[in-house]
Amino acid sequence: MLTLLHHPLCPRSRYVRLILGEYGVETRLADEPFWERRDDFLMLNPAGEIPVLVADSMPPIPGAAIIAEFLEETHAPEDSEDRQLMPQSPGQRVEVRRLASWFNDKFHAEVSGPLVNERVFKRHMTKEQGGGPPDTDALRAARHNIRYHLHYIGWLVRTRDWLAGDRLSLADLAAAAHLSAVDYLGDVPWNEDEMAKNWYARVKSRPAFRPLLADTLAGIPPARTYADLDF
Amino acid sequence: MLTLLHHPLCPRSRYVRLILGEYGVETRLADEPFWERRDDFLMLNPAGEIPVLVADSMPPIPGAAIIAEFLEETHAPEDSEDRQLMPQSPGQRVEVRRLASWFNDKFHAEVSGPLVNERVFKRHMTKEQGGGPPDTDALRAARHNIRYHLHYIGWLVRTRDWLAGDRLSLADLAAAAHLSAVDYLGDVPWNEDEMAKNWYARVKSRPAFRPLLADTLAGIPPARTYADLDF
Repeated sequence: MLTLLHHPLCPRSRYVRLILGEYGVETRLADEPFWERRDDFLMLNPAGEIPVLVADSMPPIPGAAIIAEFLEETHAPEDSEDRQLMPQSPGQRVEVRRLASWFNDKFHAEVSGPLVNERVFKRHMTKEQGGGPPDTDALRAARHNIRYHLHYIGWLVRTRDWLAGDRLSLADLAAAAHLSAVDYLGDVPWNEDEMAKNWYARVKSRPAFRPLLADTLAGIPPARTYADLDF
Repeated sequence: MLTLLHHPLCPRSRYVRLILGEYGVETRLADEPFWERRDDFLMLNPAGEIPVLVADSMPPIPGAAIIAEFLEETHAPEDSEDRQLMPQSPGQRVEVRRLASWFNDKFHAEVSGPLVNERVFKRHMTKEQGGGPPDTDALRAARHNIRYHLHYIGWLVRTRDWLAGDRLSLADLAAAAHLSAVDYLGDVPWNEDEMAKNWYARVKSRPAFRPLLADTLAGIPPARTYADLDF
């Protein structure tokens, strides 16, 4: 049995949950208040960040990209190429990894990281841990930045069926995971790009997405259309 | 023929150069002033960052971690497990990727990124590009942070022959690449940890390291012992 140390609204943790869901890997979820820097948690991941996947007779697996590579190498359905989230050809693998990193790193730095940090994590933190009221400049910058990312998604799916090519891949899950955390907070301007919205509706309707749509945080209810497949 | 768009003192580019050197892959190097955001460069990597590896009949390959995975999948010597930089077992692969990310992401954010940016890249940038005199607070923080990273390296090689286990791996190349950029600038306090220094001397003496030790930047000469194998 696998255990994922996560936070329900951490975008990178959501990415891992989607992969586990697509591959049908049963996993126990454990909320980790990473900002407390618990000794037991730092033993698992000295970097002090979530997500961390804990598997039997394995070292702890830290970080969304490393967990994704691990799951590809150990849990991808070998008999069904249609269900694989990482294509086989070197060129396609580059494109999938490029876009997964685009969302896990760049979109996270410019949009989902600041929004979730300012609006969710900081509520739980003491002043010493970095808590306090949201930084309105950071929120404004993130809400500005998300527009060009939506247009980028729209541009990609105008030329391809899915973000990285003609099949669903890790790239779609990464993008949708980060957007879903922002969407929970009501900060995705879906009217900016119709194609991006249509693509998200397709990913959102997958069975693997259902557990994410059922998340609710105490004190921070989801945006009105967060769980609607027709939004 | 491969082409690597890089900067001689970019730590992540140095990591890729070391991998290419270890695997004996001939590569053309092209200096990329990424801060100018040339249109041709943004076409290759919309994220606007180096390194980018360009290979025939492949999409451009952006980012140190993605290039490393690509080279592992396409250029690792299949017939010689001793020369492979990525081990075969899932648990060892996790540890190699964890430490490569530790240096490419965490050490870069806390040490090598600020030092190289403040002392090298900003010299070339216009004010609009972010240029100007070095931020002394950023330099001070980076020079403080490097100490605990050196102790971490020392702690790792007290229990293992190499950073991630009993063989040289991508983890050693990542750590040494970032340290080498900082060492060029004379900012590694080697007396902090004798074991870390001994480990670095071993990596530094490898043939793949020689081209890095021959680098010299106009206007910024290397520190006195930068190229010495006995330092």
